[in-house]
Amino acid sequence: MQLIDVLELRVRYSETDQLGTFYNSRALEWFECGRTELMRKLGLPYTATEGKGVYLPLVESHVEYLGRARYDDLLIVASGWELFRRASMRFETNIRHASGGAPVVRGYTIHAFTDLTGKAIRPPAWLIEAMAKLPKSPSDNS
Amino acid sequence: MQLIDVLELRVRYSETDQLGTFYNSRALEWFECGRTELMRKLGLPYTATEGKGVYLPLVESHVEYLGRARYDDLLIVASGWELFRRASMRFETNIRHASGGAPVVRGYTIHAFTDLTGKAIRPPAWLIEAMAKLPKSPSDNS
Amino acid sequence: MQLIDVLELRVRYSETDQLGTFYNSRALEWFECGRTELMRKLGLPYTATEGKGVYLPLVESHVEYLGRARYDDLLIVASGWELFRRASMRFETNIRHASGGAPVVRGYTIHAFTDLTGKAIRPPAWLIEAMAKLPKSPSDNS
Amino acid sequence: MQLIDVLELRVRYSETDQLGTFYNSRALEWFECGRTELMRKLGLPYTATEGKGVYLPLVESHVEYLGRARYDDLLIVASGWELFRRASMRFETNIRHASGGAPVVRGYTIHAFTDLTGKAIRPPAWLIEAMAKLPKSPSDNS
Repeated sequence: MQLIDVLELRVRYSETDQLGTFYNSRALEWFECGRTELMRKLGLPYTATEGKGVYLPLVESHVEYLGRARYDDLLIVASGWELFRRASMRFETNIRHASGGAPVVRGYTIHAFTDLTGKAIRPPAWLIEAMAKLPKSPSDNS
Repeated sequence: MQLIDVLELRVRYSETDQLGTFYNSRALEWFECGRTELMRKLGLPYTATEGKGVYLPLVESHVEYLGRARYDDLLIVASGWELFRRASMRFETNIRHASGGAPVVRGYTIHAFTDLTGKAIRPPAWLIEAMAKLPKSPSDNS
Repeated sequence: MQLIDVLELRVRYSETDQLGTFYNSRALEWFECGRTELMRKLGLPYTATEGKGVYLPLVESHVEYLGRARYDDLLIVASGWELFRRASMRFETNIRHASGGAPVVRGYTIHAFTDLTGKAIRPPAWLIEAMAKLPKSPSDNS
Repeated sequence: MQLIDVLELRVRYSETDQLGTFYNSRALEWFECGRTELMRKLGLPYTATEGKGVYLPLVESHVEYLGRARYDDLLIVASGWELFRRASMRFETNIRHASGGAPVVRGYTIHAFTDLTGKAIRPPAWLIEAMAKLPKSPSDNS
């Protein structure tokens, strides 16, 4: 899957733990920041998606922890998405150090399409079309 | 204000930071746990309150940090409440170590009474009555 | 893998999100609570493990989201562990509703054995022995 | 106290709660982001401060909640600092909407000067000098 750089973020003090690196669950929060910025870049902000009555709750998440990141380190978040098994959506996210590029975490989240009550719905055509807009080249991420 | 012991909790690894003690914002999350258990003890669970269309959003919070608490330390949360300036509610919370009793944090939160949309409402009579039920003696907290 | 009930916890208000259920990353924080209580039950608290200079940083996490859980819902956390590919450790955790038993999340975390600096070490014999103590029957969890 | 704009941030989905606005403790995490960027702007990053063996643990925090902020809202964080009662430091932070400027939260945190073990130390001269560098005009914040 093609990923594009969507966001820079700094590790917050609140995100560290007593081992001195980021606490493991923060990776899922950063993945969410990546999804949000990816959708905005592709012209389909998630607020607008929810505004149209389409929700994307997680059904699965997977994270590989590849390296340390400390308080105030600047990280780059790269994300991509694709339709998955017809009725789901899969986001992939890689996070690396801005300085030097050493990997920090990578992983994916799988999402259902539901209405506000949590009932499964068909993936809307406009969302599938937006997914196809993901640029083919990683450098095409202005 | 009379406070009663309402909850024991252990410091989670996720709640520590790189200094090795709990991160400062966790105190407000523990205060919330104290409010929840206080209201349950007094027969008025907060879920029921929201169920009746009454919300208690924070308008102010104050925390004093009195001592360290480390991962896995067992803490005791003591809470109390009172009507404040007629149209608000004030919860007070003290947190101490279960072993030895050394103080960890103390503070208060002030809450408005609103409906779901955030519009201010009068404090309901049944809530004011429930507040008066707080036992006068700290040992009366079975 | 055999899992045993190790902990009850209530969903905190701070753990909900605007969809009204728990935010997805909280699952990893609850998994950590499960690991902590499992190790305590097996006589090897994680604080003691770190005290002996043995750290268990995550190398991988996986979560399946199976059902909703709302603020103040009481959940039961069941955990187990095993040696994994000789040099790693694998914890598995299932979380279900205390009332009715409906599943909420299940998943696993894989951990390296390291010293304080993050350097890989051999799994200590006393830790491998403790892992073997996990009861064979799920009801054997007093 | 003079405050300067130090940071823009977006409300994360993970920071919302079931009422649809940010959860109250997030304010303290955003205050920390403000302190971090203020110190960087004044040429004294907090990592460098800890690197010199000087720690600034919180002794008190105070937050006033002034307005709602929803998922993906863009906020502006303005921060300032001053020496407080000779042996402490006081940071003040205001957070408002980037669009329209409506206030969200304001408050302060009071910090001790300690060494790594938590023992109180005198405020270092280089830190007091850096504090005096805060520009007098709010527009002087390039």
